[in-house]
This record gives sequence, structure tokens and C-alpha cells, in this order.
Amino acid sequence: MTRAVVLLSGGLDSTVACAMAKAAGHEVHAVSFDYGQRHRRELESAKAVAKALGARSHSVLKVPVGDYGGSALTDHGIAVPTGRSEKDMGADIPVTYVPARNIVFLSLALGVAEVKDAEAIYIGANALDYSGYPDCRPEFFAAFEEMARRGTKRGVEGRPVRIEVPLQSMTKADIVREGLRLKAPLDLTWSCYQGGEVACGVCDSCVLRLKGFREAGAADPVPYARR
Amino acid sequence: MTRAVVLLSGGLDSTVACAMAKAAGHEVHAVSFDYGQRHRRELESAKAVAKALGARSHSVLKVPVGDYGGSALTDHGIAVPTGRSEKDMGADIPVTYVPARNIVFLSLALGVAEVKDAEAIYIGANALDYSGYPDCRPEFFAAFEEMARRGTKRGVEGRPVRIEVPLQSMTKADIVREGLRLKAPLDLTWSCYQGGEVACGVCDSCVLRLKGFREAGAADPVPYARR
Repeated sequence: MTRAVVLLSGGLDSTVACAMAKAAGHEVHAVSFDYGQRHRRELESAKAVAKALGARSHSVLKVPVGDYGGSALTDHGIAVPTGRSEKDMGADIPVTYVPARNIVFLSLALGVAEVKDAEAIYIGANALDYSGYPDCRPEFFAAFEEMARRGTKRGVEGRPVRIEVPLQSMTKADIVREGLRLKAPLDLTWSCYQGGEVACGVCDSCVLRLKGFREAGAADPVPYARR
Repeated sequence: MTRAVVLLSGGLDSTVACAMAKAAGHEVHAVSFDYGQRHRRELESAKAVAKALGARSHSVLKVPVGDYGGSALTDHGIAVPTGRSEKDMGADIPVTYVPARNIVFLSLALGVAEVKDAEAIYIGANALDYSGYPDCRPEFFAAFEEMARRGTKRGVEGRPVRIEVPLQSMTKADIVREGLRLKAPLDLTWSCYQGGEVACGVCDSCVLRLKGFREAGAADPVPYARR
């Protein structure tokens, strides 16, 4: 059986990517990151999702990307924007950008892939929704794969680790549809940037998710403060 | 003043690289990693070296590369080789290889570089001594720089972070000479793979270091159990 490491945040996208890795026949090794997020809700979701999808292992790695600040997701001095249009979201690199976050996460996943002898790393990034993040772009993933080919034991031995970005060209509605088709546990996921009891419904992440479910003609099983 | 992030392990090589960054006119921001090394001695050395070289900041980041195992440097079940010839050391990827270690370290340094607005990252890797480590090779650093150019805010804004590997083509004797020339605090450094009170003198790292000082015609100021 082939093995894949899956970056699992506990959100909608990574959950669907994880279900796709499983559907592709891989034994799944989930990796989540505790990086000083404002709220821990998404880590609880990641654990529940990994269990529901039958992951062979699930590592929660504590990483210090929050320690160096510079993002609304880890720095309490920067406000998370709410009520923005989808057009505004894509205009600039957003304040929720965590410097080098995906680079650090993929690097650690690469170490896990070497140890677990995994041939692929799945990441749930999608360029359409988050075109503002440099480390979510196709040219970045291609460059990371090339770097990994040159910088790891597997790579120089001719068995490089592939970076799989299965949601790359999917809209949020496509992702919802694929999740429903694969019977992914969407009810266990958490996407909201805020740390409330229920999802806020107004942050960028909630806005995009709700729009995705609406366009897919499906009901989001997660409760919201407003939608 | 320009700024540089320097990966500072507390060993001879990173100390000389740090002195070179300072000599190049950069304000130095040192970064060290606590990654479950067998011994903490080198972190103490890193702190002393950063202070002696007048680093503007020194971050010690706790990273979980030790958690996934697979190396003699972090896994107590794998023996550190001793008494090997330099020729044997270069033959294969060594058991002291920590999967994706430099990749993870450089990724975190890249996040720090974005936050500190630094234009370069200095790393003390040298291909001649550790040709067995894939993530110490020139083609790896070039690929990392390209990946960073595509995956960071600085990079896509046209101000990419350079990866400086000033010891790349230097022998250990060259490094010792350069350190002496720049009056780097070589007495504060720690290179030994073992965690004793004094350096063991027989592990690969001690053997290479002692040979370097010998060839440079200088006395190593650090005490050894045997040499």
C-alpha cells in the first residue's frame, strides 16, 4: 500500500483533500500544526476528522511560526477583517498571511514523509479562493517539489516526494461537492477565523465557505452565529 | 543598514558564518533551533556567540524535527559513529542526517526574515565536509532560494531573500583561518556530537574540526577528552 502525508488543519479544504488521498488508495498519515492560532477549535476538528477518515497516524506538531508575529491569525494586535467582498479578498496579500507558513508546514511534512516512507504530501490549498497568498500558488508548489527533490534523501535516491494539491483548480462549490461525494465528515470541520462557540459567518473564511455550500446547493452542517 | 538572519547552531561553522555576515555590514538577527538534540550544550554556545558578536536579536525556536525520529542526532536508539576516516564520512548519507532538517530551519528563518525585513539568510553549511547531506549541497540552496522567491511576500514583491552560504567552498582549515582573521569567538563554540563536559575528540565532527585547526596551524581553544 502506498502512503501519503496529509496536512490536516481541520477545515473544509484539508478534510476534503484528506478524503481524496484516502480515495486514491493511500494509507493516510495526518499532520496538524499547533502554531499559536488564536483559537484551538480547529485542532479539535482535525483530531475528529483524522479519526473519522481512518488515518493510520496523526501527528500534532508544535511549531513556532506564531512566535515571530506579523499576521492577524497569530498576532492579537492585528484585526481579522470581516464583511469583505470576494473581490476585495483577492486584491492584496491579506493580513491573515502568516510569513512562510505553508513553507514551514510542508517542510515538516517532508520530514515526516521521509520517516514514514510516504511518496506524496497532500495539501488542501486552492488558488482560486486564496490567490493573495504567495505560498498557495501553483508555481510555489512546483518550486517546493523541486527543492524537496534536491534536498532530501528520498529525492537524491530517485524516489522524490510529490506535492499533491488536488483542490488547486476547484472552486469552493466544487470542493463541497467532492466532499459530499466522498462522504467526508464535513460536519466535523471548522473554517471560521474567529474563536467563538459557533462560526461567525462574517469573516473571509466563513463568507467563502457559506457561498460554496450555497452554490453547491447543499446545506452547511456547521452552526453559524449568522449567515 | 541591511539586515541578515543567521542560522546559529553554536558550532564553529555557523559562528564563522555569523562573523562574516557582520563583516559584510549586516545587522545580525541570529536564529537557533531547539529540536530535541541529544545535548543542550550547543544552544548555550549559540547564546554566548550571539552576544559576543553583537547580534541585534537572537531567537531560539523550538521545532519538532526530533519528534519524527530517524536520525542518530535526535534518536537515542541510533549510535553516533566515532573513529571514522574523512573518506568514510563522505561515502553515504550519514546516520546523523536529520530528515529535512535544513529545509525546516531555512523555512523558519525565512519567516523571521520576512518579519524582520532582512534581505539575506546566512547558513554555515559547507559541501566539502558534509557532502553526504543532501540539504547541504549547492543545488539544494539554489532550489530553496527559488522556492522562497515564489512563496513569500518579499519574493513576489520583487525583493527576494538571498540564501548566503559563505563557507560553501571552504575547507575546515579555511573556515578556521577566516574565523581567526575576523576574531570570531571560536573559544565559545561547540562542535562535538556527544554531550560530555569536554569535546570527545573522536566523533566525525570533532575529527574534522581538529584536523581543520591542525591544517590552519592554529590551536583549538576548546578542551578535548582526547585529540
